[in-house]
Amino acid sequence: MTTAGEVGERALIELMLRQITPMPGMPVSFWDDVMAISLGDGRAAIINADMLVWETDVPRGMTPFQAARKAVVMNFSDLGAKGVQPQAFLSSLGVPRDFDVEAVEEMARGFEAGAREYGGYVIGGDTNESTDVIISGVALGVAREDAIIKREGAHPGDILSTTGPFGLTAAALKILLEGYEAPEGLRDTLVESVYNPRARVVEGIALAGAGCMTASIDSSDGLAISLYDLSRSSGVGFRVERLPATPEVEAFAEFHDLRKTDLILYGGEEYELVFTVDPGKLEDAREALGAVGCELLELGAVTADKSILLVENGAEMPIEMRGWEHFTMGA
Amino acid sequence: MTTAGEVGERALIELMLRQITPMPGMPVSFWDDVMAISLGDGRAAIINADMLVWETDVPRGMTPFQAARKAVVMNFSDLGAKGVQPQAFLSSLGVPRDFDVEAVEEMARGFEAGAREYGGYVIGGDTNESTDVIISGVALGVAREDAIIKREGAHPGDILSTTGPFGLTAAALKILLEGYEAPEGLRDTLVESVYNPRARVVEGIALAGAGCMTASIDSSDGLAISLYDLSRSSGVGFRVERLPATPEVEAFAEFHDLRKTDLILYGGEEYELVFTVDPGKLEDAREALGAVGCELLELGAVTADKSILLVENGAEMPIEMRGWEHFTMGA
Repeated sequence: MTTAGEVGERALIELMLRQITPMPGMPVSFWDDVMAISLGDGRAAIINADMLVWETDVPRGMTPFQAARKAVVMNFSDLGAKGVQPQAFLSSLGVPRDFDVEAVEEMARGFEAGAREYGGYVIGGDTNESTDVIISGVALGVAREDAIIKREGAHPGDILSTTGPFGLTAAALKILLEGYEAPEGLRDTLVESVYNPRARVVEGIALAGAGCMTASIDSSDGLAISLYDLSRSSGVGFRVERLPATPEVEAFAEFHDLRKTDLILYGGEEYELVFTVDPGKLEDAREALGAVGCELLELGAVTADKSILLVENGAEMPIEMRGWEHFTMGA
Repeated sequence: MTTAGEVGERALIELMLRQITPMPGMPVSFWDDVMAISLGDGRAAIINADMLVWETDVPRGMTPFQAARKAVVMNFSDLGAKGVQPQAFLSSLGVPRDFDVEAVEEMARGFEAGAREYGGYVIGGDTNESTDVIISGVALGVAREDAIIKREGAHPGDILSTTGPFGLTAAALKILLEGYEAPEGLRDTLVESVYNPRARVVEGIALAGAGCMTASIDSSDGLAISLYDLSRSSGVGFRVERLPATPEVEAFAEFHDLRKTDLILYGGEEYELVFTVDPGKLEDAREALGAVGCELLELGAVTADKSILLVENGAEMPIEMRGWEHFTMGA
């Protein structure tokens, strides 16, 4: 017998997809951030499903409100990365028989807060009895088929860009899951990135609206895996010349003598957009993001050669394909 | 502390809904079989989510293929009850790290089989690590808003009808969960109803297409609860004059000296349509169902008085509001 843990999440999905007849005319392919069905009038219903399992996905100290809000953020983030406004959220909730009713109400408030924060509504759900707490979320939106920004579409010469810094959540998960310490103020900022993540919905819609992105992905599995996913779908490579960190990530790395680069590349549970821009439209992209209060960070270049390289102090080294993956994580 | 088990599934949902801002212009209200968002052109995207938890929802002897297929059936059934063709299925799957990869492949085949059986496609999903096996399914379809058959809409004088007999699954669950015995041939037929349920998708679409139904629900929580749900939404009562059984249910009831009526009314996990018909359209309804190979069974009458009564041997007695409910079931 081969176990899920032995093959890992990605191989498991490949095995499953082999059993599936693709729907004719699917507006987005398997392996993109979202799923979609055509509405027959040039538009598509865009849908995404993402599950939060208390035992494996919710770090200690996180409240039911925060976990529920995060279930919305992770689902809405995928739509935002495609430039699609999330309209509705629904949750299938599983809780044990002896679970506190007040915590369920708190979760409902978390769903509501998350949905309203991004302009969507909770339209319902389903409640079940389970052994562990399960929050299975679904996001729904509608978009013009030709306006959906996919993982494919990046061209050599495009500029690899992102909305945000990386590494905060990787540092926070070291604190929460592995018992690393940090000075109090630093600790608070870091764990906040895990407890109260933010989805780049407004940013994705602004970029898509300005027609700047050639490809896009949400970085929930970490920056490195996001680059591999874009590479696989677009058939290109990347030359990363700058890695956006924050003072907190630098301080944490220094405090524990960790490689800052590892925190930035191989984390996960962060919901930034990683996208590629036609060089002629870089200023438009910068302006579109600026108009919603976000800075465009240039990471490097899209290359015809499919390797994914980091340039550090003039030396090139391969970025590894690792990051957040179920079944194989240490947690 | 009050627990989920103390309040039960329905009260828990009520508590949650109190925290939610309803989406303006929702094409169907909370408490219907499905959720929907308006597409702005007279159509709506119809969506449903239903979770299957191995520990609590999957009886012994059921294979991963059957459980996965059933996850499709239970989700598609809700769309069918509204007269809506399910187009797409997606699953969020949670399995333990030591779970057999072959069983995951078998589940993928079950999703595929279930979806194709009812004219839909599997469009993707999400895979997670969990302690118990969780199949969180989502069904998606598109319909004209004014063609969605709701739980509200039944009028006094309408004829209460159903697509199928009841009681097979209640008897089967007594065998599978409570250790009741039955002669082999009988046992096989009964447990088959739980292992390989059927959704009335074609039947719901045929009835809706013929414009016969005033209200409709899928009977997954049992016949009694379905009547209470229709009653609550439509503001009517029911006078049930006939209860459709099968020879197998009668034989099982006799074998164990059980009340056949209890098996028929208070079961669950069966996916028949319970619907109301304008008396002037009863023949149309009968024909529409006959054309897809299904017999319309008249149960009784819709009444202005909101009580839900069973007429047996000339005597009226109230039908109780009990059936399949999470957290409070004996399983």
